Amino acid sequence: MNNWFKFLYLSVFLFFTSGRAQETLTIGEKQTLFSKILNEKREIWIHLPKTYNDTTITPAKYPVIYLLDGEINFEYFTGMTDFIARTPYADIPECIVVGIKNTERTRDLTPTKSQKKSPVNPDVTLFADSGGSENFVKFLQDELKPMISKNYRTQEYSILVGHSFGGLFAINTFLTHPEYFKAYVANDPSLWWDNKVTISRTKDYVEKNKKFPAGKSLYVSQADNEEQQKNWNSDMTQAIEEFKEIIEKNGSLNYKHSFFKGETHGTVSYPGNYEALKFIFKGFRTDIKQLAKNPKQLEADYKNLSEKLGAEFAPSEAYLNVVLTFMKTNDFKESEAYFMNMKNRYYPKK
Amino acid sequence: MNNWFKFLYLSVFLFFTSGRAQETLTIGEKQTLFSKILNEKREIWIHLPKTYNDTTITPAKYPVIYLLDGEINFEYFTGMTDFIARTPYADIPECIVVGIKNTERTRDLTPTKSQKKSPVNPDVTLFADSGGSENFVKFLQDELKPMISKNYRTQEYSILVGHSFGGLFAINTFLTHPEYFKAYVANDPSLWWDNKVTISRTKDYVEKNKKFPAGKSLYVSQADNEEQQKNWNSDMTQAIEEFKEIIEKNGSLNYKHSFFKGETHGTVSYPGNYEALKFIFKGFRTDIKQLAKNPKQLEADYKNLSEKLGAEFAPSEAYLNVVLTFMKTNDFKESEAYFMNMKNRYYPKK
Repeated sequence: MNNWFKFLYLSVFLFFTSGRAQETLTIGEKQTLFSKILNEKREIWIHLPKTYNDTTITPAKYPVIYLLDGEINFEYFTGMTDFIARTPYADIPECIVVGIKNTERTRDLTPTKSQKKSPVNPDVTLFADSGGSENFVKFLQDELKPMISKNYRTQEYSILVGHSFGGLFAINTFLTHPEYFKAYVANDPSLWWDNKVTISRTKDYVEKNKKFPAGKSLYVSQADNEEQQKNWNSDMTQAIEEFKEIIEKNGSLNYKHSFFKGETHGTVSYPGNYEALKFIFKGFRTDIKQLAKNPKQLEADYKNLSEKLGAEFAPSEAYLNVVLTFMKTNDFKESEAYFMNMKNRYYPKK
Repeated sequence: MNNWFKFLYLSVFLFFTSGRAQETLTIGEKQTLFSKILNEKREIWIHLPKTYNDTTITPAKYPVIYLLDGEINFEYFTGMTDFIARTPYADIPECIVVGIKNTERTRDLTPTKSQKKSPVNPDVTLFADSGGSENFVKFLQDELKPMISKNYRTQEYSILVGHSFGGLFAINTFLTHPEYFKAYVANDPSLWWDNKVTISRTKDYVEKNKKFPAGKSLYVSQADNEEQQKNWNSDMTQAIEEFKEIIEKNGSLNYKHSFFKGETHGTVSYPGNYEALKFIFKGFRTDIKQLAKNPKQLEADYKNLSEKLGAEFAPSEAYLNVVLTFMKTNDFKESEAYFMNMKNRYYPKK
C-alpha cells in the first residue's frame, strides 16, 4: 500500500468509524474512582435523565438512585426510570442512576464474617471473604456520593437499591445508617445471612428506638417460595417473612412488602424495582385534566409529597411546559395564565 | 490564540473526547433504510443480545422482536429482554430487538381513514392522515424483515409489539396477515378506532375461519379503567373488553389478557411487555436442580415449547455451558457427561 493510498484509506476508515460511532444508542458512561477506603479502583456507571442537557430549560437538579450490582441491573433500570418519568404520565421524577460495578461482591455486601459449606457440595466453603459492608457503606457515603454531587446536579434525595446480598446490604444500611439515604429498596434480601444477624439487629433497633426515623421509605420484594425451593433458597423466604412481621408491627415507616408469584430469586428485581419506585413516589402522578379545573391542586400535591419524602420537591420546568401546552391547546385560558405565573415564579428567566 | 497553543488545545480536547467516547455504555445502533413502499427513509434501532458476538461459542441465531414506537420503548425493552434471558434464571431466549422509529405514526398504525373531533376542543380535527397500516405492514414484511434477516443471524420466530395505535396495528396485522409474525403483543390497543372496525373484523374472522391458526400467541394488556377515564379514554376500555369476550370464546389461540390496576394508558406497556414475553415463552424456564437428577427433561421441555410456539427451539450453547459448569461444580458426574454429549451433538466443534 503506498502512502497516498494509505492516507485515503485511513481517512475513509476514520470517517466511517466516527460516522458509526454517532449512530450508537448510549444510555450512560463509565467512570472510575480510586477508593482510599477500599484501597482499590471502582467502576461506576452513570445515567443522566432525558432533560439533563436540555438547554431550553433552567438547569435542574435530580434525585440520585444508587444501584448495586450495576453490571446486571443498569440497562433495564435506566430504561425504566426514563420511561416512568415521561410526562404527562410520570409516576416518578426524573432521576440520575449511579450503577456500582462489583469487585468483591460478598466482601462488600455482607455485614459480618460468616462462612458456610455449600448446600450442594459440602467440600466447598462459601463466603470466605465476607463481612466488609461497613467499609463499603463508608465508600458510598464519604467517597462516591461527594464525587457524584460534585460532578452532577443532584437533589437532596437519594435511594439505595439492592438485590439478594445487595438487599441485605440495603436493610443493614437502613438499620445502621438510616440518615445516609432517604429510601431503601431490598429485592429478595439474603436476611438468612449469618444466623439471621440482620433480623436480630432489626429487633434491637425497634426495642431501642421504638420507631423508625420520619420521612424514610423501605420496600422489600420477595420471590415465589416454590421457585425458591427449587434453588435451595427456602431459608431466604423464612427470614424475609420474619423481617416483615417485625416491621409491620412498627407502623411509623413508609413500608411496602410484595410477594411475587412465579418470580425466581434471579428475576424478582425486575418487577420489584418497578413497584418500589412507584411506591416511594406515590402521590407524584398528577391528573392533568383535574389541573385544568383546579390548578391549585398541583402545589398542594407537591407539598404532601415533600412532607412524605422528607425532602423538597417542586414541579419541574419540563413538566410545567407540558401542562402549559395542554392548557393552551385545549383553550383553558385561566389555568394557562395560572401555570405561566407558577413557571415564572419557580424558573424566572434572567 | 496562537497556532501552537491552538494545536495543543485541540489535541488535548480530542484526546479527552475519544477517551470519553470509549467509556460510554451502548445498547444498540441506529440504521436507516429507504422504503420504496412508504417512499421515505426510516430509522431503525437495533439491539443485539449479549452472546451475539461471543467468539467462544458457535454463532447462534436469535428470535426477532419488532418493537413499534421504538423511540419511546427501546431502552427499557432491550434492558428487559437481556435481563430475563440471563442464565440460569432465563424466562425467554435471547432476542434481537428491532425498534422502529415513527415518522407519521397515525398514518402507519391505523387500518382505515377516520377523522375525529378532539374530545377536548371540537375545533381541532384529529387523525387527518390516518389509514395507512396496510402499506406499513408491507414495509415490515417485504423490506424491513428481509434487511434484518440479511444482516443479522435470525431465527424463524418473530414477535410484533405495539401500544395504543401500535396495539391496534398488532391486532389488525394478526387478523389480516396472521402468517407474518408468530406472536402479537397489544398493550392497551386503540380498538375503539373508527367505530370499532377491528372488533367487526375479529367477528368476521371468527365466523369465516372458525378458529385461529395454530402456533400463534396473542397478548393484550389493559390499563386501569379509572385512570383511563381521567384521560378521556373510557371508550378504549370498552372496546378492549369486547375484543376479549370474542377471543376468549374461541379457545384455539394461545391468548392472554391482563388488566393492570393503577396503570395508565401511558405506563401499562412496561408491566405489559414483561408479562407478554413471559407468557409467550412460558415453558422456557428450566429447573437446573431437576436437570441434575433427570437430564432428559431438558430436551423434553424444548420439544413441548417448540410445538407450542410453532418453531424449532433448542438449548443454546451458552445455556449448556452454564449447565455443564453447574454439574461439574456440584459433582453430578453422570449428568455432566450427558450434557457434554448433548452439547457436542448440537454444537460440534469443527
